[in-house]
Amino acid sequence: MTISIIGTGNVAYHLGKRIIEKGFTVKQVIGRNSEKVAWLAQQLQTEGCIEWEQISAHSDLYIIAVSDDAIPSVSRKLSLTLQDKLVVHTSGSITSTALQPFFNHFGTFYPLQTFSLKSQPDFENLPIFINANSKESLEQLRLLGQSITSKIYELSDDKRIVLHIAAVFVNNFTNHLFKIGQDILKKEQIPFDVLKPLIHETIRKIEYHTPESMQTGPAKRRDISTIEKHLAYLHDNTRQSFQNDDQNSHNTELYYEIYQLLTKSIIEN
Amino acid sequence: MTISIIGTGNVAYHLGKRIIEKGFTVKQVIGRNSEKVAWLAQQLQTEGCIEWEQISAHSDLYIIAVSDDAIPSVSRKLSLTLQDKLVVHTSGSITSTALQPFFNHFGTFYPLQTFSLKSQPDFENLPIFINANSKESLEQLRLLGQSITSKIYELSDDKRIVLHIAAVFVNNFTNHLFKIGQDILKKEQIPFDVLKPLIHETIRKIEYHTPESMQTGPAKRRDISTIEKHLAYLHDNTRQSFQNDDQNSHNTELYYEIYQLLTKSIIEN
Repeated sequence: MTISIIGTGNVAYHLGKRIIEKGFTVKQVIGRNSEKVAWLAQQLQTEGCIEWEQISAHSDLYIIAVSDDAIPSVSRKLSLTLQDKLVVHTSGSITSTALQPFFNHFGTFYPLQTFSLKSQPDFENLPIFINANSKESLEQLRLLGQSITSKIYELSDDKRIVLHIAAVFVNNFTNHLFKIGQDILKKEQIPFDVLKPLIHETIRKIEYHTPESMQTGPAKRRDISTIEKHLAYLHDNTRQSFQNDDQNSHNTELYYEIYQLLTKSIIEN
Repeated sequence: MTISIIGTGNVAYHLGKRIIEKGFTVKQVIGRNSEKVAWLAQQLQTEGCIEWEQISAHSDLYIIAVSDDAIPSVSRKLSLTLQDKLVVHTSGSITSTALQPFFNHFGTFYPLQTFSLKSQPDFENLPIFINANSKESLEQLRLLGQSITSKIYELSDDKRIVLHIAAVFVNNFTNHLFKIGQDILKKEQIPFDVLKPLIHETIRKIEYHTPESMQTGPAKRRDISTIEKHLAYLHDNTRQSFQNDDQNSHNTELYYEIYQLLTKSIIEN
């Protein structure tokens, strides 16, 4: 199976690396930015392509790994040459049918992971969710998927969008809570590292138990006096200390609101 | 060094287990609930005590590991026999000076960890924060602390309270986000397990990089159309589907607010 990748971001990079590691051929890397295309093509030991007219029509599969906004315009351009090829995108929040006006064979190939250049993901356990508009296309995606991870699932467009929402909560929002923790400690010159064993334990506990049964803390205990102490600190103390710094002053007001809302949600659940 | 433990909860249990593992003697477990006291005393191979009059005054250190609310009343009762002994509590949010009216030698011994009966914490890397009202007492706490963890730090009351606030964000609130993720998936019959690789990667990424530099997702990308799609789902869809279930209906309304507020905070940071 030969594959072409459209896009040069983190998903294109990590997915492309894994694809060639597993013995598939990446035929072309396609994108607008010539530097990025050249860089990724080199990483994937293949050729780059920055002109829509020069896209090879000889791959078995075309993976669109660009930002959600760009999917329609990229699809329109690709459809000029690839209308009858199998084309998928990797987005959690765009339906596969967004590709329908442009291609006869389409689907999605959604890796549920947070990709950064700096961090090498563990592909063995990385769930990939696929769907397609025909059994044949689905089987082709399954073939590729099973080669790069042990966790390949078929999932409808509607459910994938919901999965993406859950992923935003457990990944994007969790990471932001870590940033808030770091900000709070920074003011007291306490290194963020002291929180890491606690963070690791938070994750370790849900390996075998439900998050609900593992909930601890002032909100869970309805410990109103501690909650009020914490809110008072977030409200007064940090705002004062950052009074010459508008950006941080604003942050800490939101941190107060976040503490209050998440506490309310724990108490009412 | 012989130690008495007041309290029978998760902190008392795990701290007590670690203390005897490291060769110290737990002289007594003290509490109100005779069953719990008997159980913990057996776990720690020591005697239980449920009568304040029978508290042994022969320990070197008394660790109060009870809920924050109960610290003053417990201290009052203990002070009848232990006024001149070294007494500490394990609370993140109560000052050490809360013990001052009752004891001549006092301090705190705060393990920064989330303890559950079901999960065995990794004590080697568990930071413990201590302070005391004299150098001698501090050294005694340091001696004990260094025996049970490699991470023992002196920290003032004020800073410990701030540390506790940061801990609430990265632990209690993070765990609640996991619960929300699970709730959202439950409705679509998708098992929570598919999110675990993503959760692990979220944590792995902050091992060597700041959370700020690792932020990804629709809010970070200012991807308004995805954010609006997610909010619309949280607002309409889940409320409808739970319309016969008041408790869950309420939950999902809060989930909408949480999504909105955390997104705002990521965008404005």
